[in-house]
Amino acid sequence: MSMDVTFLGTGSAYPSPHRGASALVLRTEGENWLFDCGEGTQIQLMKSTLRAGKISKVFISHLHGDHLFGLPGLLCTISLNLNPQPDQPPPCVDIYGPRGLRLFIRVALQLSGSQLLFPYAVHELQPSDEQCPEEGRLSPALTTASETLHPQERPGRTVHPDPDTDCYHLIDDKQFVVKAFKLFHRVPSFGFSVEERERPGRLNTDLLKELGLKPGPLYGRLKNGQSVTLDSGRVLTAGEVLEPPLKGRKVCVFGDCSAPLGEGFKRACYGADVLVHEATLENGQQEKAVEHGHSTPGMAAAVALTCEAKTLVLHHFSQRYKPENLRRDDDEDDVSELKRQAELVLQGSRTDVILAEDFLTLPVVLKRNSTT
Amino acid sequence: MSMDVTFLGTGSAYPSPHRGASALVLRTEGENWLFDCGEGTQIQLMKSTLRAGKISKVFISHLHGDHLFGLPGLLCTISLNLNPQPDQPPPCVDIYGPRGLRLFIRVALQLSGSQLLFPYAVHELQPSDEQCPEEGRLSPALTTASETLHPQERPGRTVHPDPDTDCYHLIDDKQFVVKAFKLFHRVPSFGFSVEERERPGRLNTDLLKELGLKPGPLYGRLKNGQSVTLDSGRVLTAGEVLEPPLKGRKVCVFGDCSAPLGEGFKRACYGADVLVHEATLENGQQEKAVEHGHSTPGMAAAVALTCEAKTLVLHHFSQRYKPENLRRDDDEDDVSELKRQAELVLQGSRTDVILAEDFLTLPVVLKRNSTT
Ligand SMILES: [Zn+2]
Ligand SMILES: [Zn+2]
Ligand SMILES: [Zn+2]
Ligand SMILES: [Zn+2]
Repeated sequence: MSMDVTFLGTGSAYPSPHRGASALVLRTEGENWLFDCGEGTQIQLMKSTLRAGKISKVFISHLHGDHLFGLPGLLCTISLNLNPQPDQPPPCVDIYGPRGLRLFIRVALQLSGSQLLFPYAVHELQPSDEQCPEEGRLSPALTTASETLHPQERPGRTVHPDPDTDCYHLIDDKQFVVKAFKLFHRVPSFGFSVEERERPGRLNTDLLKELGLKPGPLYGRLKNGQSVTLDSGRVLTAGEVLEPPLKGRKVCVFGDCSAPLGEGFKRACYGADVLVHEATLENGQQEKAVEHGHSTPGMAAAVALTCEAKTLVLHHFSQRYKPENLRRDDDEDDVSELKRQAELVLQGSRTDVILAEDFLTLPVVLKRNSTT
Repeated sequence: MSMDVTFLGTGSAYPSPHRGASALVLRTEGENWLFDCGEGTQIQLMKSTLRAGKISKVFISHLHGDHLFGLPGLLCTISLNLNPQPDQPPPCVDIYGPRGLRLFIRVALQLSGSQLLFPYAVHELQPSDEQCPEEGRLSPALTTASETLHPQERPGRTVHPDPDTDCYHLIDDKQFVVKAFKLFHRVPSFGFSVEERERPGRLNTDLLKELGLKPGPLYGRLKNGQSVTLDSGRVLTAGEVLEPPLKGRKVCVFGDCSAPLGEGFKRACYGADVLVHEATLENGQQEKAVEHGHSTPGMAAAVALTCEAKTLVLHHFSQRYKPENLRRDDDEDDVSELKRQAELVLQGSRTDVILAEDFLTLPVVLKRNSTT
């Protein structure tokens, strides 16, 4: 199954003609999952090869406008792009994000008189007080201001962190396990980890043929881990003919932060194939970055190192860092410097660094074992 | 004083890479007034020669997303662009629009933790029940859901129509008179008329010199409409030496509609120099247009004819009508056909038709009398 990540917006604070506001799409076969949705995301989607109508899940890291303000319009445009079949009602779009997200979407859709051709549900993550300074916390009175559901809204869950792992368990199905973890920012912020389930290894059919075993029901039993008895009387265990199971891929997307909070991120992101982290300002401006709840490339690299991530992708650059192809010789700010600053920290590790740009698509490769 | 209108988005329903969602700026010396603010308006502003930080007033015709969803982000970006002077607090940004607008802005700014460096006030127009079908009316419970003002919010007015004129009186100052009027759409929609005040005519200084009157205080008295007595004993009235007063310019911007409602629009828009009206679909699709609360070029032209407007500008085109420079020979939909359809209705009148495109700037010329 192919899997890739497409960056739709890599700028911080606001969208510009050079860099869209935060948004990226994790594409697996047949499904697009959107992470953050700054203003203009639907326009960026139209410029990309992705299709809005295929977005089935949305994850919002935090409620800052540059990650959120494109969502009501995107939902309306998904709806315009839908071709509902009379005999097949469209599936529910699940939206995950911090407490307050439900009210934001509800009020925006209700006041704008927006009807959707599909149902949606908002699953809210309950933040902890430590995720932001006091002024960043939402008053409970605010988030409960409107109790009437939008006509297409289905009741969503309220998710609390698991006390053992400090992670929020969002999805656990045949294909994926999705968790959220806490970050520290000016307002409560979250990261998300998407992990493919392990797949059973392939049968070593060459060996089976040598043993005189022809394709048939016995193959299925071996594949399921059972032993079979050959005509010769020999008992063949699955372990003898099954390659090791295939580890699933893991993609982790951090929201804005000046630091992870607690241990959840380590559990959720350990061994990530792709770890997407913000790097708003260069190392030399770390003090300013932290004051605004943001990270530098050095800080992002330290997180990737802790998680032993295979690839660190930096994004959410201050708009002062122009994309490399637009940079002029007299521009002081050079985005490629951000890459070097991250690489410095990662010297000697096996973590690669990539700078995201709008419309960059990064394949997430399924790793077979080195012996095959 | 120069005055012009710049179109930032001319597409309907949603923003696309070819046509932004609805937004236009009326620029007078030193001030930018924004009419509607669809998603992506701040990006379009950055692509234009206008500056977000100069926007001092915002008018929202109706609460559909393609006219509204860019507003929270724009306010945040105006704030980022502000250079507040310690001794001069930034002026209040006045925002005008239908009931419900106050709550939308408040909830969006509050939930996103957006602080602004300037105060703002939302002045709500109370719609009448006849402005839309029943399903388009907002329940009062919804619009009163949150009573706590945003920290930068100042109390705004609630404006009802004047029973004599059926117009909403919004602004009446030394320079401008601004009114709103009712339109029929799927949700309550309004149009706005901005009228410059009449200016006193210029003094005919050639004539004054002939009469032996030198520049001085007497000039001022004449300019103010008073009479003066010359050395010869002759009484000179202002009327003899003042050119006729200069009529102010009038710019009218209609929101989405399938028809004006009542007589307000005639009073507000009579003799408009520029009348901006939507033309979502071509004449051949009038039934569909009306069903969705929209107009055709023919319908827009009829309104312009009633108002004896000097220039009719069409915008809010279905995204199927590509800008002329992007149109391919095999495209069926031709936006220039919309112009011809409006011109057909206006044959024999003195109304010109202009098709708006994103980033078109249209000067609104101050008309001196034909004798000068
Ligand atoms: Zn951000
Ligand atoms: Zn943020
Ligand atoms: Zn519209
Ligand atoms: Zn509309």
